[in-house]
Amino acid sequence: MAILDDLRGQLSRVFHAGAGATTLAVSGTGTSGLEAAVANLAEPGRRALVVVSGYFGDRLAQLLTRYGCEVSRLDVEWGRAVDPEAVRRALAERRADLVAVVHAETSTGVRNPVAEVAAIARGYDALTIVDAVTSLGAMPFDMEGWGVDACFSCSQKGLGAPSGLAPIAFSARAIERRVACRSFYLDLGLLEDYWVRRKYHHTISAPLVYAFAVALQEVEDEGLPARWQRHEHHHLALVEKLQAIGLSLFPAAPDRLWSLNAVRVPSGVDEASVRRRFLEKHAIEIGAGLGPLAGRIWRVGLMGSGSTAASVDRLTQAFADALGH
Amino acid sequence: MAILDDLRGQLSRVFHAGAGATTLAVSGTGTSGLEAAVANLAEPGRRALVVVSGYFGDRLAQLLTRYGCEVSRLDVEWGRAVDPEAVRRALAERRADLVAVVHAETSTGVRNPVAEVAAIARGYDALTIVDAVTSLGAMPFDMEGWGVDACFSCSQKGLGAPSGLAPIAFSARAIERRVACRSFYLDLGLLEDYWVRRKYHHTISAPLVYAFAVALQEVEDEGLPARWQRHEHHHLALVEKLQAIGLSLFPAAPDRLWSLNAVRVPSGVDEASVRRRFLEKHAIEIGAGLGPLAGRIWRVGLMGSGSTAASVDRLTQAFADALGH
Repeated sequence: MAILDDLRGQLSRVFHAGAGATTLAVSGTGTSGLEAAVANLAEPGRRALVVVSGYFGDRLAQLLTRYGCEVSRLDVEWGRAVDPEAVRRALAERRADLVAVVHAETSTGVRNPVAEVAAIARGYDALTIVDAVTSLGAMPFDMEGWGVDACFSCSQKGLGAPSGLAPIAFSARAIERRVACRSFYLDLGLLEDYWVRRKYHHTISAPLVYAFAVALQEVEDEGLPARWQRHEHHHLALVEKLQAIGLSLFPAAPDRLWSLNAVRVPSGVDEASVRRRFLEKHAIEIGAGLGPLAGRIWRVGLMGSGSTAASVDRLTQAFADALGH
Repeated sequence: MAILDDLRGQLSRVFHAGAGATTLAVSGTGTSGLEAAVANLAEPGRRALVVVSGYFGDRLAQLLTRYGCEVSRLDVEWGRAVDPEAVRRALAERRADLVAVVHAETSTGVRNPVAEVAAIARGYDALTIVDAVTSLGAMPFDMEGWGVDACFSCSQKGLGAPSGLAPIAFSARAIERRVACRSFYLDLGLLEDYWVRRKYHHTISAPLVYAFAVALQEVEDEGLPARWQRHEHHHLALVEKLQAIGLSLFPAAPDRLWSLNAVRVPSGVDEASVRRRFLEKHAIEIGAGLGPLAGRIWRVGLMGSGSTAASVDRLTQAFADALGH
């Protein structure tokens, strides 16, 4: 129980959740964190505006629909960040109770301007839900400073633990406006009873808790600003080294994630055979493009303990080899 | 993916799920397995009869209510098993689409007669949902032979792995009658897409999968009948040794679990101080009684790799010490 108390504090600091927020971890993967955020804030009669700029934005829209919200989608071309002014126009046209946006869109390698979107949402008195799965621990995230009301992440990306626990945080405002949660497993009230008031709810996975506590201690030992800078540094190094062998990134430079690099597939290259060669010859798994970006990009992660100069070198050599340089 | 295929086969055999069933593991604890069973079978308009003979029967009723069912409770005195004829009378009086029952009621140490209940439910064309959290791997369970339609368990009890994965199985009949699942994380269709058709749904916890695969291999190496017999043997040995120091079990002999022993607190004994002494002097955690059995029983687990002669001896010595024998 003492470790769980520490974990709550560590997670609150890594989200920069602030004093009034409630922070804990759901016993499941990042997707369970997404569902917990939605299940405690969405219900029939509530309206949601969802920024859909990739696969995970679409998933946000799906979840809010499953939980009964009337969902408006703000579709953004895959590979671009949302223009905050488009959010303002959408809200001016049709008010919403919830605004949902993915911070680091893993399917496109693009960062959405969460601070700006959350400020606009607050101007319309809407709660902002943010998917921070691929950003937390790897890129600046400031729940309190940005005015985010609910955010969730995973344990295995920027935070560098095994998957299986999903950090989640709710602002005081979100807690005031939470709904009667249909889910028992993801009910914030019951999770708080368990984490804070030590009332039995489920049997949390002890090895995952121990591993996560160690990983979060490593995050604090490194320091968040230094950790972000490390991710930025190796991202930029990869971009430069790939450029030297004729490869470029798909998103515009200011919108690029530091944790997930969307590399453009050069014309005439069979992207699947490159991924196969990475896996078979170099023991590196890189992701394929999804949806409209299928065949057009590779998705290359540099996250947590994987964001190193050695990873950048291995990746560059593997690309050079696979492309016959 | 090959390990996940093996895992499905192992879980199907340990449930004795049969050829037409769908078996996999939910990425969460046993409680997530409970919610997955309910979320895919319960909806407003469906009627459920729930056997409530303890804390976990009550939880089944809560979940079915959350998912919109009209729930009738068949309340049974805590510490007793349900009489199957009471189930028959309840169904004759008020038909139900779902009958839910806990096989091994962890709060009372009592086994309910699932085979008989499921046969009666089938006679009324109801689906049977069974909580096998504290029985699977420790006591005989025969999903196909008994005609169970949905059952779930956990990884850390009779199966002896860390917690964090929840085995679940649905009969062909249950799959035919499943509802549109509101949950995304627990949607059987999406989970099948992931486990069977390798379509991304969530990032399963690799260390939990590896540990579970090893634990299930150990179950198969030992053999289920031998494993059940081991649990029975050490349960009976504990009962005998406790009797020698003046302690007896709360449930009637034929209804007792082999995995969880409900030991009667002798009159005049401060049960909490006994538990404290177990923890502080012997590094053994035993459970308190819950609900109407608070202060009246201790709950002592002998499960998985913990069901050994050495555990029986340690427990007996700890009781003798704590009670001043």
